[in-house]
Amino acid sequence: MSEFTIFENALIVTCDESHKTIENGAMIIRGREIFWVGPAEELPQEQRSAAKIIDAGGKILMPGLINTHAHCGDTLFRGLVEDLPLEQWLQTIWKAEAEVLGDAEICRLGVELGFAELLSGGVTSVMDNFWHPDQTFLAAQDAGIRLATGGIFFDFDGMDGNGPENRQKDAAELFDRFGENDEMFVGTMPHGTYTVGPENLRGAINLANERGGFFSIHAAETKVEQATIQERYQTSVIRHLSALGGLSQNTVLAHCVHVDDEELDLMAKTGTHVAHNPLSNLKLASGFAPIMEMQKRGINVTLGTDGAVSGNDMDMWLAMRLAATIHKAATENPSAVTAGEALHMATLNGAKALGAESYLGSLEVGKRADFILLNHSGAHASPMFNPINHLVYSATKGDVNDVFVSGRQLVKDKQLLTLDLSDICTKARALQPRIMAALKENPKEVRA
Amino acid sequence: MSEFTIFENALIVTCDESHKTIENGAMIIRGREIFWVGPAEELPQEQRSAAKIIDAGGKILMPGLINTHAHCGDTLFRGLVEDLPLEQWLQTIWKAEAEVLGDAEICRLGVELGFAELLSGGVTSVMDNFWHPDQTFLAAQDAGIRLATGGIFFDFDGMDGNGPENRQKDAAELFDRFGENDEMFVGTMPHGTYTVGPENLRGAINLANERGGFFSIHAAETKVEQATIQERYQTSVIRHLSALGGLSQNTVLAHCVHVDDEELDLMAKTGTHVAHNPLSNLKLASGFAPIMEMQKRGINVTLGTDGAVSGNDMDMWLAMRLAATIHKAATENPSAVTAGEALHMATLNGAKALGAESYLGSLEVGKRADFILLNHSGAHASPMFNPINHLVYSATKGDVNDVFVSGRQLVKDKQLLTLDLSDICTKARALQPRIMAALKENPKEVRA
Repeated sequence: MSEFTIFENALIVTCDESHKTIENGAMIIRGREIFWVGPAEELPQEQRSAAKIIDAGGKILMPGLINTHAHCGDTLFRGLVEDLPLEQWLQTIWKAEAEVLGDAEICRLGVELGFAELLSGGVTSVMDNFWHPDQTFLAAQDAGIRLATGGIFFDFDGMDGNGPENRQKDAAELFDRFGENDEMFVGTMPHGTYTVGPENLRGAINLANERGGFFSIHAAETKVEQATIQERYQTSVIRHLSALGGLSQNTVLAHCVHVDDEELDLMAKTGTHVAHNPLSNLKLASGFAPIMEMQKRGINVTLGTDGAVSGNDMDMWLAMRLAATIHKAATENPSAVTAGEALHMATLNGAKALGAESYLGSLEVGKRADFILLNHSGAHASPMFNPINHLVYSATKGDVNDVFVSGRQLVKDKQLLTLDLSDICTKARALQPRIMAALKENPKEVRA
Repeated sequence: MSEFTIFENALIVTCDESHKTIENGAMIIRGREIFWVGPAEELPQEQRSAAKIIDAGGKILMPGLINTHAHCGDTLFRGLVEDLPLEQWLQTIWKAEAEVLGDAEICRLGVELGFAELLSGGVTSVMDNFWHPDQTFLAAQDAGIRLATGGIFFDFDGMDGNGPENRQKDAAELFDRFGENDEMFVGTMPHGTYTVGPENLRGAINLANERGGFFSIHAAETKVEQATIQERYQTSVIRHLSALGGLSQNTVLAHCVHVDDEELDLMAKTGTHVAHNPLSNLKLASGFAPIMEMQKRGINVTLGTDGAVSGNDMDMWLAMRLAATIHKAATENPSAVTAGEALHMATLNGAKALGAESYLGSLEVGKRADFILLNHSGAHASPMFNPINHLVYSATKGDVNDVFVSGRQLVKDKQLLTLDLSDICTKARALQPRIMAALKENPKEVRA
């Protein structure tokens, strides 16, 4: 194997702080790092003899996308229930989940299906929240995708057949087993303030702090959730989390659709990150997160897809497009969330939420070689006055051609190299009759 | 050439009134029509010996999509200006348009680029509104896409260098030249009530009526537009059109974002159709069209992409996905616009707007063979509990594999058969420097 790989003739979108693009650019990688990136005419020649040369002509070279909120395993239930009010929708989804998710192997199958979709779509890092997170770590190691996950906390027995009494211990074990791998991120992931009481929440927060991990939780997604916390604790979701010590620069809050000005101020003051999930918020009728108010306060806004039961696919291109369009309509301001801002949400801001902006999120020397190559030969890519506008407002997951994580190629000419897509899809489809039968049997209501 | 073509082993989504799907289906086409469609086990065998057999295994067979509002030629300016308030945005776009659109050949190039994009994305019929519509007809005849267009009306000199005094005559000529082609639709297309005065509007309406063509116009897209009409005529846009005789079952109104209950009642009573353009409405911050109020009144809602200057691409899959999600959030109702309804908007409802539901918009015996084949081998297509949910909430334009219009294949294995994509893109990109230079020269303001 050559010591260096040189990518030539690429249109480079670095996603660095200054939004630098290079019309005819080149990049050299060595091992898992970016060794050099810049204009073709300045490409150093010393490495050439020891390099593998790849012609990236006709392609955009950019950092891999960072998805900060997903439930990969939920791809098993993609499209199962649609267009229903939340309560009916959840009842049906939960019946389906209860049928199969006790089985760690089935969870892993769902995770692999999710990873296959994410990698095909140019996602190189994902913060995932699902049952059997140990399986998710193992699957990520094999697939090569960069993963952030951690122990689930839930006050009741979970879909995995595990009870609340084991959550703290199980979560701690994940740090022991996977915390040393510097390609992964371990944290704690309580489900929400309405499903996890203050004691267990405090346990999750403290564990994350003690072990230097992240803390991520669904927060302020719906009006009902805010009303529940108000009734139960006479405070709001974000204030409740704040009182428990749950806001910090290691915290990633998913959703934050229904938050008031003071809650936003608390988030800003503590350096708390937001994972914005525009498609899920639309489809579940949760509402429009106040992204401009967050930006005004300097809150770091990142992008997630949520799971395939709420959004159906996990398409970060769609997430970018939605982030850059829905807030224009919702705030009647056509300048709301620019293309550059949306692209940063899906790249550099995601790296910041992982505490990893020093080595992820943009194409810069010394950073990890997490990057993708996109075709721009389709009609929708012509003309291209500005590549950033193209990426946010016109590119699609179908344009992703090659994907690398830490210099390792995971997708080549649209083919997955580390996952057997056909086998995974066949197995996932084979579960459909069992899941449908579970719904029809109409067992006792699953508790909300 | 064989008299029949038989498509076998397909997952068929008919898009008929009952939303019928056939898990293992077959379809026979003869000439430009659907001869038979149904379950594989009922496939008649008499045609087999005189038929070409096509294995559609692993594919979804469904009607081609019908885009009821587009400006194909505007693809030349895709991504040129972004994230600006409407007035600044228009000033820039108009300067760019004024630079090149006097040239009919350049207009045709833009139209071909637009057709290439639409066909690649599974659109078989488009209602287009642009300068030099005769070029659009000629380009459509060559490309094979089914086109509805007509003479533009505008009270001022247009980007095409033509003046208002010639619009009526030019529009009439289009009926003479293209009205006899029963694969095309000729109509009249005044720009809007704020750019075309009552006399010229009446001329356009009467001409459409006399010649049996459609009448289509931008209507009630923005609050500013409604305010302008209120100030100028002391009435609202839809009432103004109604008073001029412009509402009828041959009328297609693009947008209708800002309409009151009485205006909706007028539209319902007259059988007026709506072309809903969700992406454009989001990106230009126009707002959320009251789709559920339209549905409640039985108004026929169809889908459009608008042009690539407002939406960047012309992606009907995105239009469906947005139609089925944004209204859920905007009305706080997760049952708003179901997947089946969104799919109908892009197929059968579009055919109704063209007055052609007897022969377009669904896969039924005797209808024209306008259909597409979609791959469902991607990770985002597994599992698939319901193909209609898949099509609306997860499929993308990248899944389109083959496209037929009136039985003629226009896209085969993702390759355009009637348009030279590479040549078109090269020519479109070659115009970029000229367009950029025109913006920089900063000529006199173009009148709004």
